[in-house]
Amino acid sequence: MPPLIVFGNFIFTADPQTFVCKEHAYLVIENGIVLQLVDELPERFLGLPVLDYSKDLIIPGFCDLHTHAPQYVQCGLGYDEELIPWLMKYTFPLESRFSDLEFAEGCYREFLRALWRSGTTRASVFGTMHLDTTLMLYDLFAHSGLGGFIGKVNMDRNSIPELTETTEDSLRDTEKFLSRTLGRNDLVAPILTPRFVPSTTRELMRELGHIADTYNLPIQSHVSENRAEVAWVRELHPEIETFSEVYEAYGLLRPEKTILAHAIYLTEKERVLLTERKIFLAHCPLSNINMRSGIMPLRDYMNRDMRLGIGSDVAGSHRLDIMSSISGCCQQSNLRFLDHQEEIPVTLSEAFYLATKGGGKFFGRVGSFETGYDADFLVIGLEKENPMLPRTLEEKLSQFLYSADTSRIMKRFVRGREIACPT
Amino acid sequence: MPPLIVFGNFIFTADPQTFVCKEHAYLVIENGIVLQLVDELPERFLGLPVLDYSKDLIIPGFCDLHTHAPQYVQCGLGYDEELIPWLMKYTFPLESRFSDLEFAEGCYREFLRALWRSGTTRASVFGTMHLDTTLMLYDLFAHSGLGGFIGKVNMDRNSIPELTETTEDSLRDTEKFLSRTLGRNDLVAPILTPRFVPSTTRELMRELGHIADTYNLPIQSHVSENRAEVAWVRELHPEIETFSEVYEAYGLLRPEKTILAHAIYLTEKERVLLTERKIFLAHCPLSNINMRSGIMPLRDYMNRDMRLGIGSDVAGSHRLDIMSSISGCCQQSNLRFLDHQEEIPVTLSEAFYLATKGGGKFFGRVGSFETGYDADFLVIGLEKENPMLPRTLEEKLSQFLYSADTSRIMKRFVRGREIACPT
Repeated sequence: MPPLIVFGNFIFTADPQTFVCKEHAYLVIENGIVLQLVDELPERFLGLPVLDYSKDLIIPGFCDLHTHAPQYVQCGLGYDEELIPWLMKYTFPLESRFSDLEFAEGCYREFLRALWRSGTTRASVFGTMHLDTTLMLYDLFAHSGLGGFIGKVNMDRNSIPELTETTEDSLRDTEKFLSRTLGRNDLVAPILTPRFVPSTTRELMRELGHIADTYNLPIQSHVSENRAEVAWVRELHPEIETFSEVYEAYGLLRPEKTILAHAIYLTEKERVLLTERKIFLAHCPLSNINMRSGIMPLRDYMNRDMRLGIGSDVAGSHRLDIMSSISGCCQQSNLRFLDHQEEIPVTLSEAFYLATKGGGKFFGRVGSFETGYDADFLVIGLEKENPMLPRTLEEKLSQFLYSADTSRIMKRFVRGREIACPT
Repeated sequence: MPPLIVFGNFIFTADPQTFVCKEHAYLVIENGIVLQLVDELPERFLGLPVLDYSKDLIIPGFCDLHTHAPQYVQCGLGYDEELIPWLMKYTFPLESRFSDLEFAEGCYREFLRALWRSGTTRASVFGTMHLDTTLMLYDLFAHSGLGGFIGKVNMDRNSIPELTETTEDSLRDTEKFLSRTLGRNDLVAPILTPRFVPSTTRELMRELGHIADTYNLPIQSHVSENRAEVAWVRELHPEIETFSEVYEAYGLLRPEKTILAHAIYLTEKERVLLTERKIFLAHCPLSNINMRSGIMPLRDYMNRDMRLGIGSDVAGSHRLDIMSSISGCCQQSNLRFLDHQEEIPVTLSEAFYLATKGGGKFFGRVGSFETGYDADFLVIGLEKENPMLPRTLEEKLSQFLYSADTSRIMKRFVRGREIACPT
């Protein structure tokens, strides 16, 4: 395949502190990978067809480190409850319906269209505990051309009866899920998904740890989202000092391969542990305020050089698009600063970095236009410029991100291939 | 004029605690005023033409108690600064350009289209200090068919030189503004607009108080938005104990006729004073988190039965639509609750009430479908319903509000008249 040349106005974050802006530049892509981003097209590429987006903004696709596909249909509902009652009253009853193939298919197709519309090109996704419909989600996702991880949820305790597996079934279905998905697709892979400590018995966690080791698998779960939840974990595991250490005890903290979502109330000991273990933390700002959970001390985690990305976390969050979480990230960091003046507010470039290159690391070399990165990008149509009020590329990006106007996303590419709206 | 009959699915808040839902009901409107909302059309109205929105949701138009028209073009920019440096660095330089008629016209037309798109049918609006272009804003607003108040800003101290009036000019231009706007339009009226204490000298405030008395005028300003601002007011007026009492001292707290925006850091004494004076407080949740201001203790103010509404406050806020502020209101109330367990979180119906009937009181009988209210309403196109996942009217409204998807607003009516998009 000859290289693909994309002409336009690029903006991205190679490091968290700065937006790199390249106006009227050329992105040269070979086999889906960025070869170079240059101001002048090298002679050897002259004559190749060029995708001309000279009037548009081109940014890396968004990476969503934490979301729940079955819950998308519930966005914007039920925020009168905190986490645990919300799960019991709204979310578990909804998820229990995903034993129904027809119901699941409608919901999952809707989720995928919304994900596509949002400009999310990579996502780490929870299905439900149901094998058949989570396989369906995997297939639909793989077919979409978007990239990511899909997990069959494990939950063998403390749920409603309709949404509880036996430990044995949970492990058997996990093995089946792996056998039908592992190595099947370049862009979409399975991920072990113990829901969270309260939902998974010791035996289940221990066996999942073994499976993860055996197949060298990634893992996703939740940690320290809500004070009542943290207290519950202490009750369930009085022998272990902290929430994170429960995962550690069962081999579920796999260096660079585990995502833990939320991480609001981590103790100092947990912060040290998760930093050492190179665990990815998914910051989910919107769900954290809808569900009355609290504000993640993001600046502290950044200072420790923890691995960090952003999660939409629908339907704790009301919005699947990552732009809304980027502004939410800055806003909550502002609020945190008011009472913790040593934690200086996170800037827009830092939040954008988390949503692209930061979280992108979980998916490989993803989230940047540097050489060697997967060519995942969005083409953003710019509004007609007021000639009396010209804006820099960075200002245009800022206004686009804060608008969270997904209708301005004109094209989505993953590894150099344009992705059509899933049907 | 014969009555206008509107058929559809109505939802509104007559009191803050409950959504009133009327499916397949008839709204009978006479001379722009709600005559009744009924399940069956009375015989005397049979045969009249009916506007059929039977598949849609009908809600009161949104009321915006606080916004800055010239700043709309700056939404989504400059949130790396707190209030005072933000004013000096971004906002005052922008507003100083509103001496230019051509520049102002472009910006104001853009603002009005956005206001219309957002489903805001009533707004209390700041212009700039400039007479000519604020008159232009008034004319454009009056021409749009939307309702509200327009203020020529007064500011004779502590601004940048290009955006400072003399006290004399400020008063003279205010009188001129009044002479050209007072009583000219049923729906749009002038409002006195001393920017805030730090921008207005004692003499200017005193004279504005007299003008307000003379013409029985409404007033809008800001109070206690930011800690540094509060400290500054103390420095400027050491003889007066609190920020609110400065306005009181100069006759600017007019019962039921003054809006003060933000009101985050009110002392107990101020809370009592503003309650007694029946001052409207404009809660501006989005600007308060973008600008690192803080969270208004909304539940406490509601418990005191203070007059309350919601302000978009662009461009401290990044979104002009009031839906985004409604969800922001609930979310911030959630966060406040985490550290103030006596201030129970504000519910969605309470936030919706503030955005309609609560703030609507400033505009007259506005924001409800009860008999005697102005017939201001929006027709919301519903998404195709999943037959396996039927939703109640209240759930549909919740999902619409949290989506903040203005593209679903199909029609806007003010006093029974459909409003076209301003050109």
